[in-house]
Amino acid sequence: MARVVVDVMPKPEILDPQGKAITGSLSRMGFDGLNVRQGKRFEIEVDGGVTEERLVQVKEAAEKLLANTVIESFTVHIEDN
Amino acid sequence: MARVVVDVMPKPEILDPQGKAITGSLSRMGFDGLNVRQGKRFEIEVDGGVTEERLVQVKEAAEKLLANTVIESFTVHIEDN
Repeated sequence: MARVVVDVMPKPEILDPQGKAITGSLSRMGFDGLNVRQGKRFEIEVDGGVTEERLVQVKEAAEKLLANTVIESFTVHIEDN
Repeated sequence: MARVVVDVMPKPEILDPQGKAITGSLSRMGFDGLNVRQGKRFEIEVDGGVTEERLVQVKEAAEKLLANTVIESFTVHIEDN
């Protein structure tokens, strides 16, 4: 059955302290040359399967709740699980 | 230039209170029939580009820092940005 995935990331111009902290930790652990940005991933099971209407609904839910669109951007895609 | 993405999700058998809370909020907002699980997404820029060795390095970094492999599982894939 398919599910919808919403990926939420901080906008490029926004400071990403979590990502910076992880990059620093990785470097201290010997993992050099990796620059990390951290975001959120939402996996959404949709009752009755993924239809166009449902996809519009998920995009609206992402705009209203899953992402803070002032500082974050999001993408929506369908995945087979 | 390509980047590496690490997606981290709670293991299916693990309780996901954040996902449950979001599912409840969405339902109260009128978005019924959506069952949400929340995880983390890491976008990793790799100095010198993505090679097999770098991919192995990122997998190791995911195991050691990005995911708590007791309660989370992760996948690694390459994305063009």
